[in-house]
Amino acid sequence: MEKKQILLLPGPTPVPPAVLRAMGTPAIDHRGPEFRELLSEVTEGIKEIYQTQNDLLILTASGTGGMEAAVTNFLSPGEKALVVSIGAFGDRFERICRAYDVEPEVLTYEWGTAARAEDVAERLRRDTAGEIKAILVQHNETSTGVLNDLEAISRARGDHPALLIVDAISGLVAADLKTDAWGLDVVITGSQKAFMIPPGLAMLSVSQRAWEAAARCKNRRYYFDLQAAKEFFAKGQTPFTPAVSVFFGLREALKMLRAEGLAAAFARHRLYRDMIRAGVKALGLELLAPDEIASPAVTAVKTPAGLTPRDIRTPLREKYGVVTAGGQGKLSDSIFRFGHLGYVDPTDLVSALAALEMVLAEKGFSVSPGAGVAAAEAVWRRYLG
Amino acid sequence: MEKKQILLLPGPTPVPPAVLRAMGTPAIDHRGPEFRELLSEVTEGIKEIYQTQNDLLILTASGTGGMEAAVTNFLSPGEKALVVSIGAFGDRFERICRAYDVEPEVLTYEWGTAARAEDVAERLRRDTAGEIKAILVQHNETSTGVLNDLEAISRARGDHPALLIVDAISGLVAADLKTDAWGLDVVITGSQKAFMIPPGLAMLSVSQRAWEAAARCKNRRYYFDLQAAKEFFAKGQTPFTPAVSVFFGLREALKMLRAEGLAAAFARHRLYRDMIRAGVKALGLELLAPDEIASPAVTAVKTPAGLTPRDIRTPLREKYGVVTAGGQGKLSDSIFRFGHLGYVDPTDLVSALAALEMVLAEKGFSVSPGAGVAAAEAVWRRYLG
Repeated sequence: MEKKQILLLPGPTPVPPAVLRAMGTPAIDHRGPEFRELLSEVTEGIKEIYQTQNDLLILTASGTGGMEAAVTNFLSPGEKALVVSIGAFGDRFERICRAYDVEPEVLTYEWGTAARAEDVAERLRRDTAGEIKAILVQHNETSTGVLNDLEAISRARGDHPALLIVDAISGLVAADLKTDAWGLDVVITGSQKAFMIPPGLAMLSVSQRAWEAAARCKNRRYYFDLQAAKEFFAKGQTPFTPAVSVFFGLREALKMLRAEGLAAAFARHRLYRDMIRAGVKALGLELLAPDEIASPAVTAVKTPAGLTPRDIRTPLREKYGVVTAGGQGKLSDSIFRFGHLGYVDPTDLVSALAALEMVLAEKGFSVSPGAGVAAAEAVWRRYLG
Repeated sequence: MEKKQILLLPGPTPVPPAVLRAMGTPAIDHRGPEFRELLSEVTEGIKEIYQTQNDLLILTASGTGGMEAAVTNFLSPGEKALVVSIGAFGDRFERICRAYDVEPEVLTYEWGTAARAEDVAERLRRDTAGEIKAILVQHNETSTGVLNDLEAISRARGDHPALLIVDAISGLVAADLKTDAWGLDVVITGSQKAFMIPPGLAMLSVSQRAWEAAARCKNRRYYFDLQAAKEFFAKGQTPFTPAVSVFFGLREALKMLRAEGLAAAFARHRLYRDMIRAGVKALGLELLAPDEIASPAVTAVKTPAGLTPRDIRTPLREKYGVVTAGGQGKLSDSIFRFGHLGYVDPTDLVSALAALEMVLAEKGFSVSPGAGVAAAEAVWRRYLG
């Protein structure tokens, strides 16, 4: 029989049945009234989640396409960007800058740590000539499971004119992000994370200041041109044929998120984080990120000495149906990751911890069976009150 | 009650129920064994349709993303491309070239006519310095309903070293296209056309000569970098999270197309073309393209004097549920289009012609009711033999 899978990836995430059904809605005219209504409804729903009045555009692409759009629409060749990198996706911003002849100056942090707002403040203070045109930073760094303090980084910008461009692809909905209150000029996200829908769409919010920069920007772009997107959105269309099925799923998922409310969604993701972290610690394994900066969306676990990540991930998937992510880049041999965002249930995490106990026992580690699950249950009980 | 719609667009096209159901398949790990198998299966299926042994890559984007990839991976800034433009999508190739600092030299034809291979041959003969690095051309021009003679254009290239880059987004599966036999270096298509699946994926085949050009190419690209795609495809992955749901739909659709066979699919699309054209002519309306070059995928109809395209399209959609496309660019005030590709049935075309008869009669045109349908039936009977 086909094995039941518990998908604990930092995207794609499990998709609720109602959203899966909506994905099978028959085709419509993407230049007709049905799509115009659909686009308007999902745009408003996403803006609520973004906590913004800024323009909100949706591109048919994965999140990385959104990151590219955030570079090529706002930064010209030769201009300098301050890339705040705490992991693989910070490095991706750097690579996109280089690919488009933007000059990245990288503030690098050890993987597993968060960015320090005071470093950003200090660097901007030294930029008396105003050379830095944008700060590129992750909200949640997927590769390490670390949440940056965006509010502090926003304060650190002070009145420096640099745009603040945020990759919130894996963080949005899982953790608070106040686009307008924090003055975030461009915020990027993707469909296949805490939105609970399949991959295929990238979203970006764009502030008035960012549009002014876009008007001056000389970089090369066509498919990801946001000015064209803005013009088409004004008439209820997209410049190029959109992934309509994913829009149908998005509409369903946004109804669910609105019914839940943002505060409840954040609390739910904190529960996931705390359950997994308590369970893993109780089994004697080490976590990559310290508690204070731990991501509510994904948790990186250090592989115990003598084992590779594959030694744990392969039996988790093949014997127990628990699908985890490996490490990225320099962490690929030393960590594995539990994604816990979107349509995840506490029971999924309990199952995953039980499976982890089984695998560790099989590998000869001395674990007391049930210890991880018990620790997670304790967290869960406190949450239920 | 929600009105039944007959979707006759040149994409998105109607989606078969089995494909719609497949779109609702639960999420999988895009870096796991399930996706590796899925990617391998659909890649082989698409290569059969392309009639190619070349590499075949799939991007999460609409077709225009594929067109951009075909420019930015093979043409460097300052290099010259011969853009053969017979309509709006030829013009799009020109605009993408300009956006990426490639120099387009445009062979322009009146909209509604086909490219002349002898013009291409003549221009290349004069290019003794080998300045033209690529020929960009449409297989089927969606905006006018004209099919180019790609085989003749390929012969016209002779031994000139220019790459032959083909936008087959709306033509593939509807009309024959022999990638290898005709020496087509790059062929682009999209999911939402004759593949019968929703939008979200672009496909490209890449010849060995094109890879050699890519290795020298200095243009800016990141999300659409085909070398990265090739490396990831070799391990059964994509560089960035793919639109997995559309892949599920694609697998189903490819099974259907394989069961049908390519020759039968081409014949089926010729039937659609001939039915619509016979019906429209019988109603006294004029077609934009002459029979010899008429597209099997989409038919452009000239709006009768005294009416705008909207006068016909709006009642077709609102009263009869028949969804047609307007004209693009300079034809937007003078034509409307029936798309007839993918999961379309002869009965849909009969219904559309009946609805057109109703609308024309309402508008005071003297049509003999049933004349359009009768003409289409005659074609249909000949096809059934």
